[in-house]
Amino acid sequence: MKALRVNDSRVRLAEIQMPGKIGEALVRVIKSGICNTDLEIARGYAGFNGTIGHEFVGVVENCEDAPDLVGKRVVGEINAGCGECALCMAGDPRHCPTRTVLGIHGRDGAHAEYLTLPSRNLISVPTDVSDESAVFAEPLAAAYGIAERVELGSSDYVFVVGDGKLGLLAAFCASLNSSRVVLVGRHREKLALAESRGIETISESEVGQFNKVADIVIEASGSETGFTTALDLVKPRGTIVLKSTFQGTSNWDVSRIVVNEISVVGSRCGRLAPAIELLASKKVKVDDLISKEFRLDDGVMALGQASEQGVLKVLLRP
Amino acid sequence: MKALRVNDSRVRLAEIQMPGKIGEALVRVIKSGICNTDLEIARGYAGFNGTIGHEFVGVVENCEDAPDLVGKRVVGEINAGCGECALCMAGDPRHCPTRTVLGIHGRDGAHAEYLTLPSRNLISVPTDVSDESAVFAEPLAAAYGIAERVELGSSDYVFVVGDGKLGLLAAFCASLNSSRVVLVGRHREKLALAESRGIETISESEVGQFNKVADIVIEASGSETGFTTALDLVKPRGTIVLKSTFQGTSNWDVSRIVVNEISVVGSRCGRLAPAIELLASKKVKVDDLISKEFRLDDGVMALGQASEQGVLKVLLRP
Repeated sequence: MKALRVNDSRVRLAEIQMPGKIGEALVRVIKSGICNTDLEIARGYAGFNGTIGHEFVGVVENCEDAPDLVGKRVVGEINAGCGECALCMAGDPRHCPTRTVLGIHGRDGAHAEYLTLPSRNLISVPTDVSDESAVFAEPLAAAYGIAERVELGSSDYVFVVGDGKLGLLAAFCASLNSSRVVLVGRHREKLALAESRGIETISESEVGQFNKVADIVIEASGSETGFTTALDLVKPRGTIVLKSTFQGTSNWDVSRIVVNEISVVGSRCGRLAPAIELLASKKVKVDDLISKEFRLDDGVMALGQASEQGVLKVLLRP
Repeated sequence: MKALRVNDSRVRLAEIQMPGKIGEALVRVIKSGICNTDLEIARGYAGFNGTIGHEFVGVVENCEDAPDLVGKRVVGEINAGCGECALCMAGDPRHCPTRTVLGIHGRDGAHAEYLTLPSRNLISVPTDVSDESAVFAEPLAAAYGIAERVELGSSDYVFVVGDGKLGLLAAFCASLNSSRVVLVGRHREKLALAESRGIETISESEVGQFNKVADIVIEASGSETGFTTALDLVKPRGTIVLKSTFQGTSNWDVSRIVVNEISVVGSRCGRLAPAIELLASKKVKVDDLISKEFRLDDGVMALGQASEQGVLKVLLRP
């Protein structure tokens, strides 16, 4: 089968063996989405070699331990735990110390014709959620999962830094809880997507007018300067939520965190079931976040396109 | 009067004018304590020029708006707020946007014969608390104030990184709440001070044996490597409390905060009243943390001594 693979920071489309029978569900990929993490992995982040991609919607073709799933359209939780540690037993493998992560750590990913995941990781997609929406389940879960880490009160003044895919989804989700959400970005057409949903927006050059006003800042810019912007915006004893993962270290003015008693809260993966519910109920719409769809055959070109300024979600279709 | 002053990163003992009548209490300093922040200020931190020092015990010599205080032995909250903003009106000037801070920001400090503070900042010292103990009220408040920012449960596994003055006080205070406190340090004789209080200790070289076990890590090392040590110790979804302020920026591997969903919580000043209670009740003993006392005349030499490895609290006596 075909798969888009990273080896030593080089990406290529490869012909590899179909996954064998390993006690997991076999999923035929319908569509997969390119995440900035894929681009970071291609730059060396996480030290991953293998098939990249962790956003997908597919159809279960084989599943011995849960045959009811066969033929079902599914999305999947990307963290596959040991199934035996206390975290896994509590139904949350996201921090299982021996977990593998689809297309990120120890497990081939979704930019391929087929993938495998434990059946417990799969969630059925209701018929009224299109493939183009369902493929957003994973990044939407990551955005919605912020509320698992930080309480977003209805009167909290929330700023989201970064108008990329994750920043937009984070702003959409934050606006479900708070009536005072501001998206900070640099791309007119991306900010317009937030405005069309009633979310206030400002350009990066306007940040100085909002010095230390935010109760909560969600940093989703994927850039080092984003954290400094967040420090400028957040009020004393406020909270900065960190969403971006990228290769390398960051220079932080730590004394500002101490003097202003800021809380910096890391947030990674959310749960997919609530994300699917958001899509089914149309509380969050994602269809206008798709920039382009490529054939998997053109995956390398698609990655290049996804890394360009101003581009939102790029999908692959095997 | 004599005062130990920093000007453009140069410290010297100067003869300056007595503070005039400015509607504040005039306090004759009995003893002052040298904090690492004093040493950082001498290196350029906070851009402060003036009399340094913010830990003191003294006697009120003049106080027009609260004459009952005259003759009283006092310690003082170091943040002097505007008295009019919402924070000040709620009795907490620590984040008043126009605050001055004793010996740190916009206000001459305690390494002098006299200082002034608003009368509302002063707290009487009970007679059974010695000068040598009372001078620790401010750093003890800073250590005890961690519990204002992070809940320390009795079963929480708490590590304190750094066996300096602040690290020791933080470990003493944490052990009031948690029965599982471990101090990480490099000085045998300092670690022994914690052990004498029933606190477990490990050397920095042993940190590898405690990978990702801590619910809470208090970073009080004052060094850049302390944060990496804290990241090694803290478990996924655990909390790192940042206490150290120092000049310059830090290189942080931000992706570890995101992937492991760590919370990093800045903590600066505590309240002095509970600290004085801790000293009066003997729940925290501090007398063996004093390395040496100098005359204020020898303040420059004392700062040099305080900056040497292995030295704990150095006091000044006008």
